Amino acid sequence: MNRRLRCYDCGETFEVDERKRCVCGEPLWFDVDTAGFEWPDEDWTAGMWRYVDVLPVSEPIGPTPGTTPLVRAEELEEYAGCRLSLKPEGQNPTGSFKDRGTAVGVSYAAATGYDWIGTVSHGNMALSTSAYAASAGLEAAVFVPADTPPERLELIARHDPRIFRVEGDYGQLYADTLALEHGSDLDVTFVNSDTPLRVAGQKTVGYEILEEFEPDVPDAIVLPVSSGGHASGIWKAVRELEDAGLLEETPRLYFVQAGPCDPIATAYREGRDEVTPIDPGETIAVSIANSDPPSGTRTLRAARETGGAVVSVPDEATREAMDRLATTAGLSVEPSSAVALAGVRQLSESSKLAPDDDVVTVLTGSGYKERYDVDVDSRARTIDLADLEDELAAAVDG
Amino acid sequence: MNRRLRCYDCGETFEVDERKRCVCGEPLWFDVDTAGFEWPDEDWTAGMWRYVDVLPVSEPIGPTPGTTPLVRAEELEEYAGCRLSLKPEGQNPTGSFKDRGTAVGVSYAAATGYDWIGTVSHGNMALSTSAYAASAGLEAAVFVPADTPPERLELIARHDPRIFRVEGDYGQLYADTLALEHGSDLDVTFVNSDTPLRVAGQKTVGYEILEEFEPDVPDAIVLPVSSGGHASGIWKAVRELEDAGLLEETPRLYFVQAGPCDPIATAYREGRDEVTPIDPGETIAVSIANSDPPSGTRTLRAARETGGAVVSVPDEATREAMDRLATTAGLSVEPSSAVALAGVRQLSESSKLAPDDDVVTVLTGSGYKERYDVDVDSRARTIDLADLEDELAAAVDG
Repeated sequence: MNRRLRCYDCGETFEVDERKRCVCGEPLWFDVDTAGFEWPDEDWTAGMWRYVDVLPVSEPIGPTPGTTPLVRAEELEEYAGCRLSLKPEGQNPTGSFKDRGTAVGVSYAAATGYDWIGTVSHGNMALSTSAYAASAGLEAAVFVPADTPPERLELIARHDPRIFRVEGDYGQLYADTLALEHGSDLDVTFVNSDTPLRVAGQKTVGYEILEEFEPDVPDAIVLPVSSGGHASGIWKAVRELEDAGLLEETPRLYFVQAGPCDPIATAYREGRDEVTPIDPGETIAVSIANSDPPSGTRTLRAARETGGAVVSVPDEATREAMDRLATTAGLSVEPSSAVALAGVRQLSESSKLAPDDDVVTVLTGSGYKERYDVDVDSRARTIDLADLEDELAAAVDG
Repeated sequence: MNRRLRCYDCGETFEVDERKRCVCGEPLWFDVDTAGFEWPDEDWTAGMWRYVDVLPVSEPIGPTPGTTPLVRAEELEEYAGCRLSLKPEGQNPTGSFKDRGTAVGVSYAAATGYDWIGTVSHGNMALSTSAYAASAGLEAAVFVPADTPPERLELIARHDPRIFRVEGDYGQLYADTLALEHGSDLDVTFVNSDTPLRVAGQKTVGYEILEEFEPDVPDAIVLPVSSGGHASGIWKAVRELEDAGLLEETPRLYFVQAGPCDPIATAYREGRDEVTPIDPGETIAVSIANSDPPSGTRTLRAARETGGAVVSVPDEATREAMDRLATTAGLSVEPSSAVALAGVRQLSESSKLAPDDDVVTVLTGSGYKERYDVDVDSRARTIDLADLEDELAAAVDG
């Protein structure tokens, strides 16, 4: 494929290493011609590299992301209010959806000859970038908020990156790293949350979902949104597959934010065309707490053009959804993922989703990487082996 | 398929719910006729259910295990001393290989009408069984050693099982639970580490590896061994696929234990035909610290009949292998998985593996579920956003 970048908004094009955002200020993505594209013949063990023909790299490096299962969750449908399928992206190599974009970014950086790759992250993307850089023999520089918990840094440190805990505004840090890459001679490329290489990788989850449904199309895809990079990737997949003539209909795209930090949902509610930064509150959904989302306006556009919406849910609903997933579907996810299921329930209650709608919910990250406040003692007792039968009988017959 | 059980050793057969171990004392497995079996046509998004025709259940329940990637790890080949492929089973739904056996066990229990499912585990299997029981609407009773760390119990408790911390001998606990199931009227079935349903599920990793290599066959498959259930599953896969006429050659099966707790390797070294319990030492590979392995003798047979071996490695080698995987291949695994790579290196050094041997190493579980002692501070610094360029330049140019 060619490697030009295009602005989704004003249409301007650029060379791939020229810049990551348009002169108009909006984020760029790859200009991909999918006329004639067909679903690949090769088997699914290639993971996301199954779609290498529409990706800007040809030599995959590192652990294989993708081919995460699509799980019909009938046991959750009364709660969700629709026909529900789950896409547990926590089954990727480092436990989150971020591996798809990272794999493209790191493969590109290695092929292009960079020695360093950088990212700005609350945790998942720093972990993913550090792991893939290690597998490619590249150095990683990861920039995280200064108050990132040490337990999360421990996971990241295993892959031996340079970790910078940054005191300062997170949105400004994002912008400054891109400015630095294009305004200095430093041998580093940044694969931030919504940069073109990352969006190219993230689009593969959209390709997988839509290929698994074909010849049908799900009525809606629902995912959490933070920077808007993941949302942009899924919208890109829908657009490219429409261009290829492979979709009979367009799925509605719904994006869900955490109530205490919901700049995109706020702009949507207020009918605005642009997302502006907000003054955020605290939320349990730390991975998506971005008060100044660089692809916020693009996400707004994706929701409107596909007939979807952007909503936000209170933390209490997120906690309930997280518990339902663990105790009813057997899936432990992080709060930032549970936000999406809480959003599905809210969208059903407000009749934006109908009971017979086929809805795919993307669960972005595994819950097992973090410790939560779960009451172990109410579920556990210490017994003597000699009392095994009595204890088990009391439980089973009780 | 029929549902009779057979003893690998004396050949005696039994009905499926009659017993889990033979009257001769050895473990049973399903008697599967694979004459005429061919590699399935359906796509790999079915995960391990791709092989439903050779499994004792037909209605899959719960998150989908399987279709974990097979990753060529050229960057580790000098260290490993052979052509190395990795099978990261930590990408299963609850982060370990256990989900394959659990999925079969829980699907069977639900179809048969049991209300309770039980297991005896150091952690991974308790987590897996709790999650799958939740997805099937079954109650789970999980029995763990009394000194299991609370952090591990917290992950398990999310899925709302009854947890029993048992004071007493672990090998005896295993035997007592099976005796209880078959000697009482309690409405519970145990899917312990090497019971027939679990081995049936675990064999699918062998099917996947061998199908991905076909028409070639890897020279060797190397995995960690604890109870011997996983080892038995892989050996079962090899035997069934040989019976089906789908293997040109037989891969050698190598099993690796942690030096401080290596009853099977000890029996192998001493040329014995039977594994007997040992008095174990402490090891970092807690998930495989089984001093009285119920399928130990069957594992010994698997190694000998395929031309492989059973070895053990010191914890220091395990630590080094774990670090290599994280910093060179981008994969964080638990110590019990790293044992397998340490074993590969040792087998290469002793010329049991040759430089041009194609060797598949099964990495049984994700490392991200636990916290390790990693030096974060040597890799992390706290900086001010205003110093971003200077700090990055110092790192890149340093």
